[in-house]
Amino acid sequence: MSNSTLNLENLPRTLELKGSASDARFCFIDERRLPGELVMVETGVWTEVVDAIKELAIRGAPAIGVSGVAAIALWAANDGEGSFDDACDVVANARPTAVNLAWGVNRARAHVVGLEGQARAEALFDLVKRMEAEDEQTNRAIGEAGAALFGPDTRILTHCNAGSLATVFYGTALGVVYAAAEQGKVARVYADETRPVGQGARLTVWELARAGVPVTLICDDMAASLMANGEVDAVVVGADRITANGDVANKIGTYGVAVLAHEHGIPFYVAAPCSTIDFTMASGDEIPIEQRSVTEVLPQSIEGVDVWNPAFDVTPARYVTAIITEHGVYAPDEIGRLTC
Amino acid sequence: MSNSTLNLENLPRTLELKGSASDARFCFIDERRLPGELVMVETGVWTEVVDAIKELAIRGAPAIGVSGVAAIALWAANDGEGSFDDACDVVANARPTAVNLAWGVNRARAHVVGLEGQARAEALFDLVKRMEAEDEQTNRAIGEAGAALFGPDTRILTHCNAGSLATVFYGTALGVVYAAAEQGKVARVYADETRPVGQGARLTVWELARAGVPVTLICDDMAASLMANGEVDAVVVGADRITANGDVANKIGTYGVAVLAHEHGIPFYVAAPCSTIDFTMASGDEIPIEQRSVTEVLPQSIEGVDVWNPAFDVTPARYVTAIITEHGVYAPDEIGRLTC
Repeated sequence: MSNSTLNLENLPRTLELKGSASDARFCFIDERRLPGELVMVETGVWTEVVDAIKELAIRGAPAIGVSGVAAIALWAANDGEGSFDDACDVVANARPTAVNLAWGVNRARAHVVGLEGQARAEALFDLVKRMEAEDEQTNRAIGEAGAALFGPDTRILTHCNAGSLATVFYGTALGVVYAAAEQGKVARVYADETRPVGQGARLTVWELARAGVPVTLICDDMAASLMANGEVDAVVVGADRITANGDVANKIGTYGVAVLAHEHGIPFYVAAPCSTIDFTMASGDEIPIEQRSVTEVLPQSIEGVDVWNPAFDVTPARYVTAIITEHGVYAPDEIGRLTC
Repeated sequence: MSNSTLNLENLPRTLELKGSASDARFCFIDERRLPGELVMVETGVWTEVVDAIKELAIRGAPAIGVSGVAAIALWAANDGEGSFDDACDVVANARPTAVNLAWGVNRARAHVVGLEGQARAEALFDLVKRMEAEDEQTNRAIGEAGAALFGPDTRILTHCNAGSLATVFYGTALGVVYAAAEQGKVARVYADETRPVGQGARLTVWELARAGVPVTLICDDMAASLMANGEVDAVVVGADRITANGDVANKIGTYGVAVLAHEHGIPFYVAAPCSTIDFTMASGDEIPIEQRSVTEVLPQSIEGVDVWNPAFDVTPARYVTAIITEHGVYAPDEIGRLTC
């Protein structure tokens, strides 16, 4: 594509903490309403942010990392019921698979050691604002590092949404797309629907079209045929947790795409910030996989029919060509030795 | 499973030509209404049968083969406008990928050479009734041949619907399941949703549950993870066209499942009648792939978003463990030497 059609100013910011430490309000896009409606929610109630994370109004590993800390900042600024530690635990346990939530909460705890009351609220407010800025900087650095991997007219397949909508702004996997598109290197992005929640069909295609990147939606079961037809030059996806050996937990379906890419000789890249790396876990076998509601798959039950609905899967490191971080591009077996 | 819960009497017949050669009516299940409603349509108008095939009210390679001849029989019995050859051409071109439609029409043409008027109508009526009976016999023979491949407690993954609903009765891939279940060998069937039309989510789970076979629905992007978890002992699918070298055209997504099965060391079986084998085509590269409407994937368009929606894909013979026919089980490279 020519980069003349690219228009990143069209992309809204996904999250923003507003006000002050004594009157904090958190604004976020309710992603359940996309692509039909772009609805910004504004709340000062910390439990509403936790519910938004549980119900996928806010989703994406980097976004829920920042939003978790924002929830704690709202607790400190506006509510204050119960203990700080209890609030931290509630936030950390909102969803189990992405490591960024625990990473954010741990960072919040460390940041306010010895502080209470207004001082703690101010420190948390400032931390969220710093994390928001860092998130965009990190994503732009991931984008630059990843864009260098591609030549002209690259056709990229992605699964789920690791886009601007999964972060504060710009995205991880789609950050790589945006940076490559700014360099005129992206011919087209193919987006898997990503059943059952449809992050690809609802979010990825919406934000890419809004940003002016040529995008084609496919059903998840079409990716193999698209690859066999020679239409995919590279796969780029995000990650919810990367273990020390380079195994990658990401949205259900990622592992299948990785196997298919491997079989077709197509490079398979994972784009993620260092905060996604869980140095405490040796391999993906240890990652807890969230099981979600039957109704996500089958809104109206059919008598005698069971449903299996894991939200994530684990791609073993041997299927991963490289991991793109804000510090550069690494082979999966190098990732455990990074110092972030 | 114990076979005590199996109840094939609960399965309705999918198709049936009723009446006589001078007053013929074709009855079929409108599969677009499943699983919500079981609606039988009865019509004497041949073009309504052609439309039902185009619009997927009737689908499945064996079912559309018989229904195509039934449409011609209705033309001969009830309407008679235009020429017989033109009616045959209209039916043969209703859908391009499944060879059974052309196979059925060619059989009808050969069957009535030298006949006209009432004699032709009677010959066509009798041919449809014979094809209905043959279809069930063929499927039961496929089932017996396939069931012999399995041991106790087998967990089978299938894609799309090659079930009773894809045939007159009993099914091909699910015929294998039913025959194995009658022998007490089936622990569970996993059914892929099969986007975008949802033949797995709407039809396969419905008929298996109705027949009393334990069934679990998964999204298409969960098959890889299910295999990695060791939950799949075999894959069994149907076919729309098998070429002389053993390549298999089947519902979009089949090829991806075949690659995943290969990577996980799981046998991948294709169950299909000999009428599905196209001895005139050397390889799957020659098979025309039907492209269907964008709205199947994206009911409400999103500005700037393209859609790719092929209805079928081709699985190269090297990914196929064996092809199960009514004459027995064959390696894919033997299929071109069969005499059917």
